Amino acid sequence: MKIKVSRKEHFNAAHRLYNPAWSDEENARIFGKCSNPNYHGHNYELVVSVTGTPDPQTGYVFDMKVLSDLVRDYVTKKFDHKNLNLDTKYFKTLNPTAENIAVVIWKILREKIDSSLDLKITLYETERNYVEYPAP
Amino acid sequence: MKIKVSRKEHFNAAHRLYNPAWSDEENARIFGKCSNPNYHGHNYELVVSVTGTPDPQTGYVFDMKVLSDLVRDYVTKKFDHKNLNLDTKYFKTLNPTAENIAVVIWKILREKIDSSLDLKITLYETERNYVEYPAP
Amino acid sequence: MKIKVSRKEHFNAAHRLYNPAWSDEENARIFGKCSNPNYHGHNYELVVSVTGTPDPQTGYVFDMKVLSDLVRDYVTKKFDHKNLNLDTKYFKTLNPTAENIAVVIWKILREKIDSSLDLKITLYETERNYVEYPAP
Amino acid sequence: MKIKVSRKEHFNAAHRLYNPAWSDEENARIFGKCSNPNYHGHNYELVVSVTGTPDPQTGYVFDMKVLSDLVRDYVTKKFDHKNLNLDTKYFKTLNPTAENIAVVIWKILREKIDSSLDLKITLYETERNYVEYPAP
Amino acid sequence: MKIKVSRKEHFNAAHRLYNPAWSDEENARIFGKCSNPNYHGHNYELVVSVTGTPDPQTGYVFDMKVLSDLVRDYVTKKFDHKNLNLDTKYFKTLNPTAENIAVVIWKILREKIDSSLDLKITLYETERNYVEYPAP
Amino acid sequence: MKIKVSRKEHFNAAHRLYNPAWSDEENARIFGKCSNPNYHGHNYELVVSVTGTPDPQTGYVFDMKVLSDLVRDYVTKKFDHKNLNLDTKYFKTLNPTAENIAVVIWKILREKIDSSLDLKITLYETERNYVEYPAP
Repeated sequence: MKIKVSRKEHFNAAHRLYNPAWSDEENARIFGKCSNPNYHGHNYELVVSVTGTPDPQTGYVFDMKVLSDLVRDYVTKKFDHKNLNLDTKYFKTLNPTAENIAVVIWKILREKIDSSLDLKITLYETERNYVEYPAP
Repeated sequence: MKIKVSRKEHFNAAHRLYNPAWSDEENARIFGKCSNPNYHGHNYELVVSVTGTPDPQTGYVFDMKVLSDLVRDYVTKKFDHKNLNLDTKYFKTLNPTAENIAVVIWKILREKIDSSLDLKITLYETERNYVEYPAP
Repeated sequence: MKIKVSRKEHFNAAHRLYNPAWSDEENARIFGKCSNPNYHGHNYELVVSVTGTPDPQTGYVFDMKVLSDLVRDYVTKKFDHKNLNLDTKYFKTLNPTAENIAVVIWKILREKIDSSLDLKITLYETERNYVEYPAP
Repeated sequence: MKIKVSRKEHFNAAHRLYNPAWSDEENARIFGKCSNPNYHGHNYELVVSVTGTPDPQTGYVFDMKVLSDLVRDYVTKKFDHKNLNLDTKYFKTLNPTAENIAVVIWKILREKIDSSLDLKITLYETERNYVEYPAP
Repeated sequence: MKIKVSRKEHFNAAHRLYNPAWSDEENARIFGKCSNPNYHGHNYELVVSVTGTPDPQTGYVFDMKVLSDLVRDYVTKKFDHKNLNLDTKYFKTLNPTAENIAVVIWKILREKIDSSLDLKITLYETERNYVEYPAP
Repeated sequence: MKIKVSRKEHFNAAHRLYNPAWSDEENARIFGKCSNPNYHGHNYELVVSVTGTPDPQTGYVFDMKVLSDLVRDYVTKKFDHKNLNLDTKYFKTLNPTAENIAVVIWKILREKIDSSLDLKITLYETERNYVEYPAP
C-alpha cells in the first residue's frame, strides 16, 4: 500500500477574475466583486501532496525539505507578493480562479517530480474556499 | 482530469441522540451523555464539495457564491439555531448522528446540483469528530 | 514580573437566550434566533488563565494538570453535554449569554484557586464570538 | 469588573506599501517585496473588541449581531475585494501597513460606538503577522 | 454508499531520524537537523478514520467514544510523552519518520477494528507536514 | 496611543521536566509523564510582540521581516530540532517549563530590541497550554 505525504506552503498575491473576451459589464455580472478592476488579494495556502512507496533506506516517500525547496523555487518565488494577472506569465490570458491556479501549479511541479509518484495540489483561496486537483 | 471545489459553511444547533424504539435506559447505555434528555449542542462546520470540469469561459467548476447561497437557502436556514430533533422535519424519527445529518444534507443538495457533478459532504461535529459522505 | 499561564478546555452545550420578565415577542425581538424556544447549541472553547510568579522549585506558576482537573471537576462536568438553561442551577433565572457564562465560571473557579493568583476566563461561543472576564 | 466581547470578521484586499516622498529605489529598499508596484494581497482577519458592563436586562455588553452589522456597513463593505491604495479614500497618502489599517478602522468604529465603551482593534495580515490598537 | 468517520487524537513525543546501517556523517547528511543525536520532538496530531455503513439501530458507523478509547489504550498510551526511538518497541530498528509511524499505528489498530471496516491513518508531524496511510 | 505588533514563529524541540535537587521518584511524582527520562517533545509556537509608536515615515512600529530575522538568529536557531536540556546552555540547571523557556527567550530578545519598545513573549507548548511573559 502506498503513502501520501503533504507539505503546506503559502503565498500572498493580488488577482482579479477577468475574461478578456467579455465586456466590463459582463465580467462584473459574472465575477461580481472578484472582478474589481484594481484587484484584491488573498493569503493562499498551498498543499502539495506526493504519493508513493517509502524508500526502505530513509523511510521517506519524499524528503519534505526537498519538496519545500521545490515549491519555493518553482512556485512561491514566482507568485508570492505578486499580482497574478500582471506579474506572472501564467495568467496573461488565463483567468486566475483557484481552479486555474491549482492546475498551473500542478503542471509546474509535475515536471520536477518523478513520474512514478502521484502529485496532487490543494489550494485554499480563503479558509472557506478551496480546490483540489486532480480530484480524488 | 477533474477538479474538486469546496465551500465551508457553519450552523449552530441543539440535538439529542435517541432511538425511540429503545427504553430510556437503553438510550443512555448506548449513547451516554449524547442522549441527555434536555439536549446539548454543537457548532457544526459543513464542507460541501463539488467535482467537475472547469467551464472554459469562467474558469469555475461551480461559482462559490452560488454554492454558498444554495447551502444557506436549503441547509443552514433550516438547521442554524435550531433543535435538530424538534425543529426540523428530517430528524423526527431519524437519529441525528453526524452520519445521518451528513446523508440528509447530501440528499437535500443532490437535487439542487446538476447530476454531471459529483457531490460530497464533510461534517465536523467538533474539531475532533467528523464524517464524510460518500466515503472516498 | 509575573507570568500568565493558560489552559484550554471545551464543552458542548445547548442554550437559549431568554429573559423571563419579557413576553415571547420581546425575547424574539431582542435575541432573534438565539431565543429559539427549543434551544440551539455550541462547542464552547474555554481558556482559564492564572497569573503569578513561578515556584522556584518546579518552574510552574500553576501545574497545568491540576488546573485541567479543576476545570473538569467544577466546570465541564456540570456544563458538558447539558442544556445550560434546564440542567444547571446557574441559569435558571440568569440569561446564559457568553458574558454571563464567563462570569459564572470565574466565580466557580475563583474559590478553588489561591487568591494570590489572578484569574481570567476567555470563552469562545463560536470561532467568531468570544468574551473575556475580567476585561484586561 | 468589566467584560470584553470580541467579534471576528474578515476582508480580502490588495495593497502595496509605499511612501510617495521616497524614490522607487528607496521604497524597494525599505519595504522589499511588500512594495511590489502591481500590488499583492491578503485575507485580513479583523477582531473588533468592545469592553463594558453587561446590560442587566439582556446580559449583553454589546449585541454581537449589531456589532457585526456595524463592521460590515462601515468597514468591510469599504475594504473587502478592494485595492486599499486605489479604491479607498483612507490610503491615498497614508501607507497601508497593518498598523495604519488598524488605526483607520478604530477611528471609523470609534464614532459608531458609545464612548462609555472601550474599543480595540486586532488585525491579522497573515496568520503569523498581526497588530493590536490601542496596545494593551 | 459508505460513510467515513474520523476521530482526532494527539500525542507529544521525542524522536530522531536515524539509519543504524549508516555512519553518523551519512545520517547527518541525509536527515539534517532531524537526526540531532539528542533528539527533538513534536506535538503529533493523529486522525483515525473508519469507513463503513451506519448501523440502522444507532446511526453510527463506529461509536466515536469507543474509537477514542481504542486509540488511547493501544496507541497514545504507548507513544505520548515518550521517546519513540528509545521507549517503544516499534522503532528500535525502524526509522521513526512520519511515514513509518503512520504504518505502525495502522497495523496496531487494524487488529482491533472489524475487517469489514476500512481503516486510514492521517498523521500530522507539524501543521505543515503530514502523511496518510493507505494513500487514497 | 501605542500599537502592539506580533510575529509568530515556531520550533520543534525535545525536553524533560526535571529538578536535579530531587530524587527520580520526587521528579516523577511532581512532573509525572513530563519527566520521562528519555525526553518527549513539542512543536512550540512562539509569538514575539513589540509595542511602540509607528514611525511616521514607514508606518511600522517594527519591521516584521527584521523581527522575524532576530527571532530566527537568536532564538529558533538555538532551540529548533534540539534537546532543550542537553543541547542549549540555558537549561543545564534551569527546568525547561514553558514559563522558564518564555523568560529565557524574553531575556535573549530584550537585549536586541530598543528599550523604548515594550517586549512580550507568548509561548504555546501545545494548542491547549500556553504562557505569556510578562503577564498583561
